[in-house]
Amino acid sequence: MATMVQTTELTGQMLIAGAPVQGAGKEIRGIDPQTGEPIEPAYAYGDRSHVEEACVAAAEAFSPYRSAPIETRAQFLEAIATNLESIGDALVDRAHAETGLPRPRLTGEVGRTAGQLRLFAAVLREGSWNQARIDPAQPDRTPLPRPDIRQRSVPLGPVAVFGASNFPLAFSVAGGDTASALAAGCPVVVKAHDAHPGTSELVGRAITEAVESCGLPAGTFSLLYGFGPELGTALVTDPRIKAVGFTGSRAGGMALVAAAAARPEPIPVYAEMSAVNPVFLLGGALAGRGAELGRAFVGSLTLGSGQFCTNPGLVIAVDGPELEPFVAAAREAVASSTPTVMLTPGIADSFRAGVAALEAEATVLARGSEADAPAAPCRAALFATDAPTFLDSAALQSEVFGASGVLVRCSDAAEMLRLANSLEGQLTATIHADESDHGQAADLLDVLELKAGRILFNGWPTGVEVGHAMVHGGPFPSTSDSRTTSVGARAIERFLRPVCYQDAPKSLLPSAIADGNPDGLWRRIDGNLTQD
Amino acid sequence: MATMVQTTELTGQMLIAGAPVQGAGKEIRGIDPQTGEPIEPAYAYGDRSHVEEACVAAAEAFSPYRSAPIETRAQFLEAIATNLESIGDALVDRAHAETGLPRPRLTGEVGRTAGQLRLFAAVLREGSWNQARIDPAQPDRTPLPRPDIRQRSVPLGPVAVFGASNFPLAFSVAGGDTASALAAGCPVVVKAHDAHPGTSELVGRAITEAVESCGLPAGTFSLLYGFGPELGTALVTDPRIKAVGFTGSRAGGMALVAAAAARPEPIPVYAEMSAVNPVFLLGGALAGRGAELGRAFVGSLTLGSGQFCTNPGLVIAVDGPELEPFVAAAREAVASSTPTVMLTPGIADSFRAGVAALEAEATVLARGSEADAPAAPCRAALFATDAPTFLDSAALQSEVFGASGVLVRCSDAAEMLRLANSLEGQLTATIHADESDHGQAADLLDVLELKAGRILFNGWPTGVEVGHAMVHGGPFPSTSDSRTTSVGARAIERFLRPVCYQDAPKSLLPSAIADGNPDGLWRRIDGNLTQD
Repeated sequence: MATMVQTTELTGQMLIAGAPVQGAGKEIRGIDPQTGEPIEPAYAYGDRSHVEEACVAAAEAFSPYRSAPIETRAQFLEAIATNLESIGDALVDRAHAETGLPRPRLTGEVGRTAGQLRLFAAVLREGSWNQARIDPAQPDRTPLPRPDIRQRSVPLGPVAVFGASNFPLAFSVAGGDTASALAAGCPVVVKAHDAHPGTSELVGRAITEAVESCGLPAGTFSLLYGFGPELGTALVTDPRIKAVGFTGSRAGGMALVAAAAARPEPIPVYAEMSAVNPVFLLGGALAGRGAELGRAFVGSLTLGSGQFCTNPGLVIAVDGPELEPFVAAAREAVASSTPTVMLTPGIADSFRAGVAALEAEATVLARGSEADAPAAPCRAALFATDAPTFLDSAALQSEVFGASGVLVRCSDAAEMLRLANSLEGQLTATIHADESDHGQAADLLDVLELKAGRILFNGWPTGVEVGHAMVHGGPFPSTSDSRTTSVGARAIERFLRPVCYQDAPKSLLPSAIADGNPDGLWRRIDGNLTQD
Repeated sequence: MATMVQTTELTGQMLIAGAPVQGAGKEIRGIDPQTGEPIEPAYAYGDRSHVEEACVAAAEAFSPYRSAPIETRAQFLEAIATNLESIGDALVDRAHAETGLPRPRLTGEVGRTAGQLRLFAAVLREGSWNQARIDPAQPDRTPLPRPDIRQRSVPLGPVAVFGASNFPLAFSVAGGDTASALAAGCPVVVKAHDAHPGTSELVGRAITEAVESCGLPAGTFSLLYGFGPELGTALVTDPRIKAVGFTGSRAGGMALVAAAAARPEPIPVYAEMSAVNPVFLLGGALAGRGAELGRAFVGSLTLGSGQFCTNPGLVIAVDGPELEPFVAAAREAVASSTPTVMLTPGIADSFRAGVAALEAEATVLARGSEADAPAAPCRAALFATDAPTFLDSAALQSEVFGASGVLVRCSDAAEMLRLANSLEGQLTATIHADESDHGQAADLLDVLELKAGRILFNGWPTGVEVGHAMVHGGPFPSTSDSRTTSVGARAIERFLRPVCYQDAPKSLLPSAIADGNPDGLWRRIDGNLTQD
């Protein structure tokens, strides 16, 4: 089914329902963060008329797209994956030029992105997303007969997707939001992130070619470039858009949440926003492997210039001699770390400002070397403070996007637990614990499972598996909707809603809930799961 | 486990964490809608301090309540059911006095309410609500080993519930919202509806006694009386409240949605608000049984004085001679219907105003007789209009709560389909179709499944089964969140969120996702459902 993407020459155009469209607004270009130099071609912003055009096409595509055979939809996702892989080095090169992320990391990200698309193809074929349920009729029930009632899921409608700067592939144009929305049967309109316009065009064309090769309606996918507060808001408030996926800053996410809530018809916004991802170091673990933990912590902190939503920006431990090997190793690792580039000049500026704010309120434990700034502005930073100071400081509790961490020295386990209780919602929380720590770990777990979407033991939160059990989400403000995940199989549920059919004629029933189970699904019959 | 409720003497007090508390604000009393007379005792409104007290207690109860064995939680729900039933005639009598609803209907509603509680007990024991998933570790995977990742669901936290006037039992203090939130592991704070304060107290005491007899923390349940815009808003904006269930008017629901969205930490609001529940009559059905359909329609329209969320307020058919037997029978049935009481004087006033607004814009087909007004203010009303007039009129498209319906005569099937496409979100949509109509019904179904939560064939929407496949919900504005149902087994999902555990020590894993499947759950292992 998949076609090869034959050309990688970039046009600087948007893609609206399969057609290249030239914008007429402000021109942007990718910036090579290693040199600060712009990269051709220019991408001219679109405006409201382009939003309208894309949304009209998406609305027209919705009915035929959602009605296409599930197998066609699965093959479409696989075709996107194949098309992405077939771009090969050109995609990695462009993404590297626009983001400064290392080529091996980006090669891995192509694989992750293709893997996500294929996961959703498998999820589609397995079919439990239908939530098929049948409560058979009971014509003889008294005082009233029971009708035949059957439930399945239908897609919400066209979805707007806003990609992230830090994963130019896996959380961008063909990332998890797009893949899960397309899997659910929703056409997608993506607003490209300004930080990687060329990468976005390449990926957008890979999707567009898959739309064509699979014979799907052209409006199934569009890619727009534009100014967030203007084009982005227009997209979220377009009446044809029925849900929003977003990965980015808290300010950006909350602006979309507010815009969506103010619509005449409010719609769900799945915004994955921010977190400091606390790491709790318990006494047994520190005693047994403090220095090792210190080095591993800094490895996670500095990975990818710290530009991960799951970056461990907060470490919490009981103060005392057992903490010192950890601190010494972490200081040494930070001090010997080499500066690295960041994704964009704006992110680098925010990082410098964030680090300065921490410097004003906490003790500097270590900084990375100063070489190469401003070409490599990400100098790792590690701070220390005590629990009362931390709890009193908005700055210390805020995320600094980049390789910056704060160690909070607690007076005892009770203070550590109180600090855990005071935390905002988080994407992740991590506990390092040995067998001897399990009592304390159980107390912490009881608190942390109400604070975070994922709880790790004896590991580091950077690195999010794409699977069936993953939760990449968490209570506000880490996301705007804690009831979901943006990574993994259950992400598809965000774009579905249940419908039930009462006494529907057999010939009109969708196959998912038809007699004889033609799709071979797991279904709940009178409440009992069965594949019959 | 259940204790008998020994006394039915009413105190006029709130119930906060097991203790009776006297309010100090404005006094309200139940009103007998058949006489307009107040019913003792008085209920004095509570204020913000009572909200605070109830929410603090709920927050304190949350951890022990959610950690109690699932079997205890199931027995708690069953104890509430038994306690409700054991009140017997006193409950039905009081509800009848406060609402004017017929005793047989209320006896049925006690059964429905108890049945809902027992359904959630069964849902708890079955355990699929845990959404247990395990992606086992792959230590040998390259380039990186895969960690062990397990997912389960946890409750959101304390829930605020606002009951409806029209189901003083099944959608009120111990109704579906309370039952599903308690099932999920969330303490509940109910704001009693002013229309049935005594019924609310009786039910609140039944729950309180079940909390005690099951040894659960007192803050698991509280019942407050108060002024909606003040006490209700205070409740929804209390930082300890993590979700809201509401059944009522669009204005009331949207006020809670706005209050919840404006919190520093926004929370989900499940508001079931309003619908006109369109009924499509197709040609074959009309030709075969037009008169019968007309009589049955009016039976559904006038049931319970039309005071159902699912009342069929809109009938759509192609105009012509085949429609006339339906119209004649419906007119006769409306004209011969006797006036009935409504739940409250306010609802009766709104009904009169709504009918007057329809009279100004549509043709009167029939009215019920005028006898007994104002003691029986609900005079059934049936109007007719054409599709262009309907589409141009906000009044004709609005819900009139009560036994009032509008027939829209379409010029042809295409106009009928356009009208379907123009509808707002609905709780239900109904198609009356014979075999010969199935082609047209399929086209309608394709539109209506995007407009409604439940689609009925050859039936009437009043009457909502409590089961595993039911969806009582629908796109905005019928509800504030179309992704859920407020009736049936899946209502529990509204109050849960997923958490995943990465490389958790065996001894710390919750039993739902422990090795060896000690709870005997259906779980998804590497994506595959199994009970092993």
